[in-house]
Amino acid sequence: MSSSRSERRERPQTQARRAEIIRAATATFGAKGYNRGPLTEIADQVGMTHAGILHHFGSKNALLLEVLQYRDDSDVEKLPDHHIPGGTELFRHLVRTAFLNAQRAGIVQAFAVLSAESVTDDHPARSYFEERYANLRREVTEAFRVMCEEAGVTAPATVEMASASILAVMDGLQVQWLLDPTALDLGEASAFAIEAIVAQVLTPRSTLL
Amino acid sequence: MSSSRSERRERPQTQARRAEIIRAATATFGAKGYNRGPLTEIADQVGMTHAGILHHFGSKNALLLEVLQYRDDSDVEKLPDHHIPGGTELFRHLVRTAFLNAQRAGIVQAFAVLSAESVTDDHPARSYFEERYANLRREVTEAFRVMCEEAGVTAPATVEMASASILAVMDGLQVQWLLDPTALDLGEASAFAIEAIVAQVLTPRSTLL
Repeated sequence: MSSSRSERRERPQTQARRAEIIRAATATFGAKGYNRGPLTEIADQVGMTHAGILHHFGSKNALLLEVLQYRDDSDVEKLPDHHIPGGTELFRHLVRTAFLNAQRAGIVQAFAVLSAESVTDDHPARSYFEERYANLRREVTEAFRVMCEEAGVTAPATVEMASASILAVMDGLQVQWLLDPTALDLGEASAFAIEAIVAQVLTPRSTLL
Repeated sequence: MSSSRSERRERPQTQARRAEIIRAATATFGAKGYNRGPLTEIADQVGMTHAGILHHFGSKNALLLEVLQYRDDSDVEKLPDHHIPGGTELFRHLVRTAFLNAQRAGIVQAFAVLSAESVTDDHPARSYFEERYANLRREVTEAFRVMCEEAGVTAPATVEMASASILAVMDGLQVQWLLDPTALDLGEASAFAIEAIVAQVLTPRSTLL
């Protein structure tokens, strides 16, 4: 969730070219996964050679990491002050993100496929996803603490599980929605589940045991 | 979630051999995904040839579907009367499954990798996962209806979203746990999230809007 990429100095033409390659790579990795998504296919989509892609990114692994970083950056760029909000506003931001995701199946598919693929042997995106989830869990946990303070309650021991659960339910709903977009409304279902988990943190209730 | 497999008549020796191949395939598909998990590696693990595997299963695709079906069957076989429970008992069953999953990372990894890989182009397990989620959502929705009836409340319109969310959060937590098993307790976090979603169906509360 850093935005260091935009700080790199590049000619506008080079930047546009790189962005075009990243979009093509997102489509190919989403359609075939990383391991089966060939660089030649990405090159064909943007009218370049395999060597041309390597000139811009160095390696297929490096391109993969740029694809992942690019989406994080563009999400953050849409926010006021390019800054992730805290407290209750973070949960509202996550709900809005879920509604936005329903409009960009290609990116959602690339993330769903790559995040699961990343747990396989020697996958180049493994540390990216490990760190991404750790960072996101930390941010959501912090937002829970702020929210509890504002509500005048002590933050319960469940905030860490709740943070993992919010990210998990968003991811899991994406897979079901990608398999059958008519089976659920991605935005509505995510909003419902996030609300459920937040409510359970603020006022826990037991119904099963 | 059918158990038709066990009805097929096979010599015990053949059955044991098939089960051995399925275990090896689960490990290979979990470690590499389906597309990159070669039959020759599976064959090596069980001391057979590539042709020997094909003799038992016909094709790599058919073996994949047996791997998926095998886990569903063995889950059901552990249940009283080989039958998925309904009502509140289904939610308790899902919580128990999450605790059980924490003891079988190999199978969890195969499912996580294959379910996400299944959304890629022309994947042989796509309809398996589409149907599996549709069936599970239907079963959980039905359990919600029974539970609401027993609680004397009208089943709200949210039961379908809630059903998708329960499956989603279990899946999503698995990916985070596979990436870093020390980051969360798979059983505890799943139990927390399932409880949160069930509570939100029975007595909805809004905390974000």
